[in-house]
Amino acid sequence: MNSKWETTDGSIATPRGFRAAAIAAGIKKVAGARDLALIVSDAPETTAAGMFTTNVAAAAPVHLCRRHLRVTRGRARAIIINSGNANACTGREGARTAKTTARAVAKLFGLAAHQVLVASTGVIGIPLKLDLILRELPILKEDLSPENGSSVARAIMTTDTVPKSAVLRSEMDGKTVHLAGIAKGAGMIHPRMATMLSFITTDAGIAPHDLRRMLREAVRVSFNAISVDGDTSTNDSVLALASGLSGVSVLPKTSKGNHFLAGLTELCQALAKMIVRDGEGAQKLMTIEVRGARRASDAERIARAIANSPLVKTAIAGSDPNWGRIICAAGYSGASFDPTKVDIRVNDFVLCRSGLDAGFDEAAAKRELDAKELTLRLDLHQGQGSARMWTCDLTHGYIDINASYRT
Amino acid sequence: MNSKWETTDGSIATPRGFRAAAIAAGIKKVAGARDLALIVSDAPETTAAGMFTTNVAAAAPVHLCRRHLRVTRGRARAIIINSGNANACTGREGARTAKTTARAVAKLFGLAAHQVLVASTGVIGIPLKLDLILRELPILKEDLSPENGSSVARAIMTTDTVPKSAVLRSEMDGKTVHLAGIAKGAGMIHPRMATMLSFITTDAGIAPHDLRRMLREAVRVSFNAISVDGDTSTNDSVLALASGLSGVSVLPKTSKGNHFLAGLTELCQALAKMIVRDGEGAQKLMTIEVRGARRASDAERIARAIANSPLVKTAIAGSDPNWGRIICAAGYSGASFDPTKVDIRVNDFVLCRSGLDAGFDEAAAKRELDAKELTLRLDLHQGQGSARMWTCDLTHGYIDINASYRT
Repeated sequence: MNSKWETTDGSIATPRGFRAAAIAAGIKKVAGARDLALIVSDAPETTAAGMFTTNVAAAAPVHLCRRHLRVTRGRARAIIINSGNANACTGREGARTAKTTARAVAKLFGLAAHQVLVASTGVIGIPLKLDLILRELPILKEDLSPENGSSVARAIMTTDTVPKSAVLRSEMDGKTVHLAGIAKGAGMIHPRMATMLSFITTDAGIAPHDLRRMLREAVRVSFNAISVDGDTSTNDSVLALASGLSGVSVLPKTSKGNHFLAGLTELCQALAKMIVRDGEGAQKLMTIEVRGARRASDAERIARAIANSPLVKTAIAGSDPNWGRIICAAGYSGASFDPTKVDIRVNDFVLCRSGLDAGFDEAAAKRELDAKELTLRLDLHQGQGSARMWTCDLTHGYIDINASYRT
Repeated sequence: MNSKWETTDGSIATPRGFRAAAIAAGIKKVAGARDLALIVSDAPETTAAGMFTTNVAAAAPVHLCRRHLRVTRGRARAIIINSGNANACTGREGARTAKTTARAVAKLFGLAAHQVLVASTGVIGIPLKLDLILRELPILKEDLSPENGSSVARAIMTTDTVPKSAVLRSEMDGKTVHLAGIAKGAGMIHPRMATMLSFITTDAGIAPHDLRRMLREAVRVSFNAISVDGDTSTNDSVLALASGLSGVSVLPKTSKGNHFLAGLTELCQALAKMIVRDGEGAQKLMTIEVRGARRASDAERIARAIANSPLVKTAIAGSDPNWGRIICAAGYSGASFDPTKVDIRVNDFVLCRSGLDAGFDEAAAKRELDAKELTLRLDLHQGQGSARMWTCDLTHGYIDINASYRT
């Protein structure tokens, strides 16, 4: 029997086998700000999986991770992460920097270079100074411990206002299994400033291709179901390491496998929502639920168009019960549906019924929209397809953060 | 020989055969604001064409125009336009309102109902009061004149801050041919407030299917090549009427046909740029030129992604030479290209060469970006495909206008 997944205290280094550390290497402009982190697994059999940006201008560390995971068929022992510089649009020199970093970490721990993964976030188009990283690696190694894991979530921040971290635990086969994750991201991207990164560790044992498949499934309904501004970064990466040291192994399509997937999904969704809640300038977290679509893909298109519409997002910022903008965004989403059948609610408050104004009380609707967290529900009444996304409102704060990057 | 097209004074009723008028019917909330307009052609052989929104939640007047143009095979004599209410998401009652309006106009002029086109813009989801329109029609008919044409551009405005109008003339076969147009739009849409509409008149004679084809071509490189916020309205319409009363007939793929298309394109681009310049909160008009793409469709995808990126648009607002955001938007556009070959310039100032920072002077770049009108140029160096789009910056003003619609 598996117990429920429970939230617990801890860090990215809480699952058995992991140690971590973070220091200030001088990559960020703010003196003394932590900007270099290392996560290491001491278990030789650690498996690994990654999901990466679809941007064709993907950054050097993204190319490196894809290559290393391919070569090792899903094995890795360490992740080295820097903030303050994305190492994107940096050409051959940037590729060399990422490669040399991985090699140096590998040498320090007696690993093959391919067993090291690299992630970067920050300014685009400016060379990442390799020496700043190399000279700090021995100190970083010294600092590695399960206790120092909590500093890593802060070290990977850029425009984030809060560190994002979650740890889950569950009893499986009478043993304790942990799932831990950290994330950074405040806009979906802003290339000279930030990106979306997440790192996940677990002490469950799971084969590389199973970890990969489950990670893809969990990311689909979490990190790929959020939108702050609709931009897709050059550096977006989600990396997962599984040490196996809990003594519990999971196989897909078994009770344990399903339980593990549920925990992984819960972890990813918790982190994804933290990103939206911390969205640049965001004041509200909005869940968009679409159901009754002919196909799940139609529901997803509609949810995504609504989540990305500047007109919907400014209306939410102003607590304006402007359901016309919602139906309009659905209308240009590319999804097939009959607009005269659509019902729209905020939480349980009906704004639109069968595509027509429900004749609601304006002040009551405004009160409903004033909440910091709210759910927009669309029912298309045309089938069984459904989808869920999370987004935030669009405010002056977003423009203040993004109109200039050096002030 | 055809003379060049020249800008001239006049209005939508300047081409021979046209009369127009506009009055305050009480549809807009502001007392005395003009909100009902009529454009009529006195030439029985007038041809007509239209281009409409692709939004599946298209408004009642859009459905009516599509049907009428199909039934008449491209003949129309009158366009009745109201602002203040979009007659969208208004169900069967809204469809009846549009139909009854067309019938009433037809009766007044002894036309078939199908010869009348209808356009609406304004609030979504609230019934359009038919009686407000019907009672004013006789007065509107009285007021019709070539001179009253100038009031129409103002009567179709919603959040627009200036009326948008242009008239071109050219000598063809020793006769004078006119092309006149008006437009409204300040966001690409904002369903409870506005939409993008344009009306074009000409005294050239042209067969319906030729007019339709040329209109489609002109709209492709003008109204379909602008973006304010990436939203597509339920009401977007471009309608063209050709009276033939100049005595000049044009056929496609002749010297006269090409000349007419050039004028039509020039007119549409002039109006399209007026919309972007008046974009909600916009302070800058930005032209995006992409060349060197493998295919024109790749160039267009890249131009569109850049034009719609909130991160690029806020950077432009802040005069931030943030070329990383530009290459990043190109990267997620879906276009196929090699990011290491891309050059990026603002006007003639180089920001990025072969995908790398060009080492430019920051202050000089900022000065270049401070201009009210600027051109972003991307050269992909991978083929012959090119595209051009127009967009504006994203400022606090956009949020102020859209965060609430009743204050």
